Amino acid sequence: MKIDLLIHSAAQLVTCASPDGPKRGEAMADVGLIADGALAIASGQIVAVGPTADLRADFSAHETIDASGKVVCPGFVDPHTHVVYAGDRANEFELRIRGASYLEIMQAGGGIVSTMRAVRAATVEQLVAESKPRLEAMLALGTTTVEIKTGYGLDTTSELKMLQAIALLASSSPLDLVPTFLGAHAVPPEYKGRTDAYVDLVVEEMLPAAVEWYHASRSTLHAPLFCDVFCEANVFDREQSRRVLEAGLKLGLPAKIHADEFVNLDGVSLAVVLGAVSVDHLDVTPPAEVELLAQSNTVGVVLPAVNFNLGSSHFAHARGMIDAGVALALATDINPGSAPCPSMPLVMAIACRYQRLLPAEALNAGTLNAAYALGLGHKLGSLEGGKQADVLIVNAPDYRHLAYQFGGNLVERVVKRGQVVL
Amino acid sequence: MKIDLLIHSAAQLVTCASPDGPKRGEAMADVGLIADGALAIASGQIVAVGPTADLRADFSAHETIDASGKVVCPGFVDPHTHVVYAGDRANEFELRIRGASYLEIMQAGGGIVSTMRAVRAATVEQLVAESKPRLEAMLALGTTTVEIKTGYGLDTTSELKMLQAIALLASSSPLDLVPTFLGAHAVPPEYKGRTDAYVDLVVEEMLPAAVEWYHASRSTLHAPLFCDVFCEANVFDREQSRRVLEAGLKLGLPAKIHADEFVNLDGVSLAVVLGAVSVDHLDVTPPAEVELLAQSNTVGVVLPAVNFNLGSSHFAHARGMIDAGVALALATDINPGSAPCPSMPLVMAIACRYQRLLPAEALNAGTLNAAYALGLGHKLGSLEGGKQADVLIVNAPDYRHLAYQFGGNLVERVVKRGQVVL
Repeated sequence: MKIDLLIHSAAQLVTCASPDGPKRGEAMADVGLIADGALAIASGQIVAVGPTADLRADFSAHETIDASGKVVCPGFVDPHTHVVYAGDRANEFELRIRGASYLEIMQAGGGIVSTMRAVRAATVEQLVAESKPRLEAMLALGTTTVEIKTGYGLDTTSELKMLQAIALLASSSPLDLVPTFLGAHAVPPEYKGRTDAYVDLVVEEMLPAAVEWYHASRSTLHAPLFCDVFCEANVFDREQSRRVLEAGLKLGLPAKIHADEFVNLDGVSLAVVLGAVSVDHLDVTPPAEVELLAQSNTVGVVLPAVNFNLGSSHFAHARGMIDAGVALALATDINPGSAPCPSMPLVMAIACRYQRLLPAEALNAGTLNAAYALGLGHKLGSLEGGKQADVLIVNAPDYRHLAYQFGGNLVERVVKRGQVVL
Repeated sequence: MKIDLLIHSAAQLVTCASPDGPKRGEAMADVGLIADGALAIASGQIVAVGPTADLRADFSAHETIDASGKVVCPGFVDPHTHVVYAGDRANEFELRIRGASYLEIMQAGGGIVSTMRAVRAATVEQLVAESKPRLEAMLALGTTTVEIKTGYGLDTTSELKMLQAIALLASSSPLDLVPTFLGAHAVPPEYKGRTDAYVDLVVEEMLPAAVEWYHASRSTLHAPLFCDVFCEANVFDREQSRRVLEAGLKLGLPAKIHADEFVNLDGVSLAVVLGAVSVDHLDVTPPAEVELLAQSNTVGVVLPAVNFNLGSSHFAHARGMIDAGVALALATDINPGSAPCPSMPLVMAIACRYQRLLPAEALNAGTLNAAYALGLGHKLGSLEGGKQADVLIVNAPDYRHLAYQFGGNLVERVVKRGQVVL
């Protein structure tokens, strides 16, 4: 059979394949390793995966890549980011090291509100121009699919502007970009002390506007639109979070939720009851809710770059979550405040060291399970026949190097939808 | 005046200049920032540093680099590495996550001895071929000078082989490589239980051989040769360490010392008494020895990538060292066991978060003070007239981004000895 591209002779071809659904429990320690492996690609899809000798016999390719001595693995999926923003918060970073309190940082113009001001003041074109290099950095580090949240606009016009920026970036980037509406990211200053009124605005005005925009833009996005909320003390309580997510569900937007970053408000049970695609952060989730999550179809997403960024020694108990049977995924949470980090490999490196994930578990959490955290596990996240050909050539003889080494970049080439893009 | 290269219009030109000696105390928080700055380079040296308007008036350049919107800063100096080695220890990394004890790892063939076996088995050419990509990764991340220790040979022939590999790498790399003889890195298996006899071998045979080699190779190295020892419980005690370093000093090799990584053996006082150029690790140094170090000319080098690699929440008290007046430097300690990390920016990012260094302090610690930790502060580590032109163009508007962002690579171009090498 004639194909477009044959990647062959990989020291390790790592499929991250799973027969059905995300990986859980002991399956997370299995990356589906094929020694001297090959991958056949045609029309942007994976046609076959197997030993080089077999695929060489079965296929004749227009183009070949010799991956001798190297690892071939799925492109990373980053299922939780705030990568579209304007400005930066380097000043706030320094203030925090100097010991400034949260209040002092707010008074110095820091926090989410400072990014909200920058985003409100920016044009769509400026948002795109500032965010594009960040997406390019992520691609260079092996990320081929990126979820992107709104939530720095916090008014209808600015939230729509963020969605437009995501669509424009999607149309000019090889990456798959998956938009999430997060109007309920924070309460903007003009609604201070009137959180319920802001939730009314989100539910009655912003969400319908976002959905209308999404239907008009579907042709450029090829991705679902999610609805998310920051369920946290002093932000949106459990009832307010439920209102936002239920309104989204009614409009056809699957739910995601920020829960248990600082204070446990039973966000996991809300996620499970609503059938959320993912519940994210989970830094203070009690064991009973970990059990609940393990028995659900909701993916648990942990974000250890945030804990690292705070210089914390507390991390989400991801080891226990895997042992309990949670379908665990990793994400960068890239954002200007709590995680100015584009790198999925570094997130995997942190997870292995501070959350005691095995390199195999970290890799499955950053590929297949991350795709399931976006409802895209059926077409992304593993090297299996019929899936989209999003593939990395990694300059190392063993997949464990992706987490064992840290701070550099082992990704040598990136294939996206069957095309060599880097 | 006619010059070779003018780098101009930098948003921030960061000199890290210091009138005499390394930076200490409050001076560490000052990076010598020039807004709209420029740098004039001729014959590989810095001719002048100042506002763009002034340098444009004074110089006419063959070549120019427009650094608008960017940071220009000194190349990073990595003053403590074990970057020349063969093999890897990814397996040991996984065993450690699985909870294997030190003894179990040793039995599985892990630890320094496993790298010793790989190095003894490798040819010089293999050592060079395996190490070169690591040096290239370090250069891409902005490191322009690298100290490299021997210490994986642990017999005379293999230690000399490591020195030869360093010299070969130096002759084919744009980097300045600074060799350190570390025959006393560990006690090899054939000397098990006979540490004093191994010290005899180091002092009587290895060190003289290393010095003889050094004098024959000086023309390719252009750098001092240091003598180092791992002063640690169950490795070399204080008296054995003193013997090694004094033997080195007698042969003209300035001293460096690994001290206080796990157990305090008064290594700092030994370093100070012997006038060591640096004392490295300092994870468990008591306050009285920090005071002693602060009053000495010895640079304190901390290696937070090692603590990170162990998933530890304990880090050297670098904040207190700066406050006490220690001339503090940062290094990667890149090695296959405790720090498979090529990145000085990531080390700076860790130091800011887990050791509470300001971004300015981290930058001075990774440039000027790191050069002083190699006895090269007079010619490297800052952008000052008369110094070697080792310069980075950083794709960020503010030097603090070097530590604020993490996991990516902001280094856009590297100038080494006045030549654009990347």
